[in-house]
Amino acid sequence: MIDNPYYSEEIHQDFTVISIGRLELEEGGVIPECRLAVRTWGTLNEAKDNVILITTWYAGTHQVWADIYIGDDHALDPSQYFIVAINQIGNGLSTSPHNTDDPSISMSRFPRVRIGDDVVAQERLLREHFGIEHLALVVGGSMGAQQTYEWAVRFPHKVSRAAAIAGTAQNTPHDFLFTETLSEQIRSDDGWQGGEYSSNAEVVDGLHRQAHLWATMGFSTEFWKQEKWADLGFGSRDAFVSDFLEANFAVVDPNSLLTMAWKWQRGDVARHTGGNLAAALGRVTARTYVLPISEDMFFPVRDCAAEQTMIPNSELRVIDDIHGHLALWAFDPRFVPQIDRHLSDLLAETV
Amino acid sequence: MIDNPYYSEEIHQDFTVISIGRLELEEGGVIPECRLAVRTWGTLNEAKDNVILITTWYAGTHQVWADIYIGDDHALDPSQYFIVAINQIGNGLSTSPHNTDDPSISMSRFPRVRIGDDVVAQERLLREHFGIEHLALVVGGSMGAQQTYEWAVRFPHKVSRAAAIAGTAQNTPHDFLFTETLSEQIRSDDGWQGGEYSSNAEVVDGLHRQAHLWATMGFSTEFWKQEKWADLGFGSRDAFVSDFLEANFAVVDPNSLLTMAWKWQRGDVARHTGGNLAAALGRVTARTYVLPISEDMFFPVRDCAAEQTMIPNSELRVIDDIHGHLALWAFDPRFVPQIDRHLSDLLAETV
Repeated sequence: MIDNPYYSEEIHQDFTVISIGRLELEEGGVIPECRLAVRTWGTLNEAKDNVILITTWYAGTHQVWADIYIGDDHALDPSQYFIVAINQIGNGLSTSPHNTDDPSISMSRFPRVRIGDDVVAQERLLREHFGIEHLALVVGGSMGAQQTYEWAVRFPHKVSRAAAIAGTAQNTPHDFLFTETLSEQIRSDDGWQGGEYSSNAEVVDGLHRQAHLWATMGFSTEFWKQEKWADLGFGSRDAFVSDFLEANFAVVDPNSLLTMAWKWQRGDVARHTGGNLAAALGRVTARTYVLPISEDMFFPVRDCAAEQTMIPNSELRVIDDIHGHLALWAFDPRFVPQIDRHLSDLLAETV
Repeated sequence: MIDNPYYSEEIHQDFTVISIGRLELEEGGVIPECRLAVRTWGTLNEAKDNVILITTWYAGTHQVWADIYIGDDHALDPSQYFIVAINQIGNGLSTSPHNTDDPSISMSRFPRVRIGDDVVAQERLLREHFGIEHLALVVGGSMGAQQTYEWAVRFPHKVSRAAAIAGTAQNTPHDFLFTETLSEQIRSDDGWQGGEYSSNAEVVDGLHRQAHLWATMGFSTEFWKQEKWADLGFGSRDAFVSDFLEANFAVVDPNSLLTMAWKWQRGDVARHTGGNLAAALGRVTARTYVLPISEDMFFPVRDCAAEQTMIPNSELRVIDDIHGHLALWAFDPRFVPQIDRHLSDLLAETV
């Protein structure tokens, strides 16, 4: 185990770690005791029909949702809904390579986890721990959108509404290659030592290089041209790259990033239907909003739109934001109001 | 000196290396004897007014122009024009870190070269060696477009027509960052040894990683989604990445790539006008076609179009190609016919 302060209660407030016991994985591995980090807001009503599930993205946790998306002034309103954010397996808070004391799965021995494993684990946790059998809404961005689609396809009878922000149901070949370049930055750092480093500091070069790839693909060309980093309080492009991007990635556990990247690369609801994506998406009964970001370089609108046409009761709503994929961090004050409007509309729909 | 077989006459046919003597560089360095690799086609007429200059792109040489763009059935027709392709400094054929026997500039001691240095060197070569004072057309793609713009701004009276394919006059911040990630792949390879490797094989991991970045930014998302590699005769995505992209980059000299990348990052015609891009482009008197590629991820149409509006006698003509920036390699049979049409139109214009 590595004591990485980024995953402390100081930085990630008010979460509970809940064990769901043994989790057998799609790829054949096992997590002997799978622990999921969960944060909730609001109160579960008696009918247990006011539940919103939030799934997390690559290199992310529930905290960004707490900071940005949830509150009485947002669509994700704890005064109306019981909101549950479940951190994905391997994200550093839930069971992950660096934080398990089980030698059979620690560090380089961590098994391969798929999006489907996360959704199975989340369903079990919600049912066994909270007695929740039904979701009013499942919402997530990026890898969270992958989990959202997986929910809607795997458990259609359990999901009334789904909102997939800036992500796809079937990962694209381009995304696979991009994600591979992210992981290569870590694996090519000698300090990674095949996954057996003793602190992030040993892999800092690789983490910084990964941050640089996020600079070029995570934002849009216009973000840089219009020097939008100045609006965020940075004095120069270099300062934004080092003090924001490098700093953000340097603290994240490298093996966690590799675990999530492997999962992201292989997200695919068509695994349920022998590779037939239209058949898989045809199973969705949830009222679904597909919410790509206009300037996204690696989950481009057209990839999301193509999937939307295969989802029976769905609607395409493009989020206009120059920041590109990392608009998810709500750099632009106009971003969250768009999300709020779409989620409010979706929650208001009778299903 | 490293004897890299990629730069042999076997692979790069029919070029001549011409010395232009001492070249003092914008950054303060000196190339004591600057040798430019030149290939020509056709015959210089008596008036010396039938000259077309071709400039080269990153990791490229004159050879791709010979293979794809030049011939009696193309706009670049040797039966009508005297066509001169000049390899950029540092590209592995012209004076470069690995091929000079001058210890003051070999390998890690190679000086910093700018686009302006190339254009000054090219102008001197054309004038002193061929007696050429005027260009009917200068044309280049990518970094070749940077040189094309530099010609049109630096020597407006010498250029009648300019065609800038998939490149900009002032490099964008996004391009700067992308190019930095390319160079980082090499510098982070221990085998690079601060530029003092003894063969490409020592840097092969870094070169392969650079090839992987070209996979995600050099092509478009649709190239991968539509599996266009199959049209090119490859059996799988992985085979295309390894047998084509990795293979292509593994043979190129690493220090050459770094020299060209540094130059690419800083291409900027506004250096002539105290940073005022509009003033610099306002100097252009050449009839200019701005030819971005529709799916280019890092020289996007809008960046090229923004510059075109600042060029007095210019026209924007977007090249439709799903392959993205690397469409330049003419993977699509519809690519070169588009180039031919635009160049034919441009050459037919009275100026």
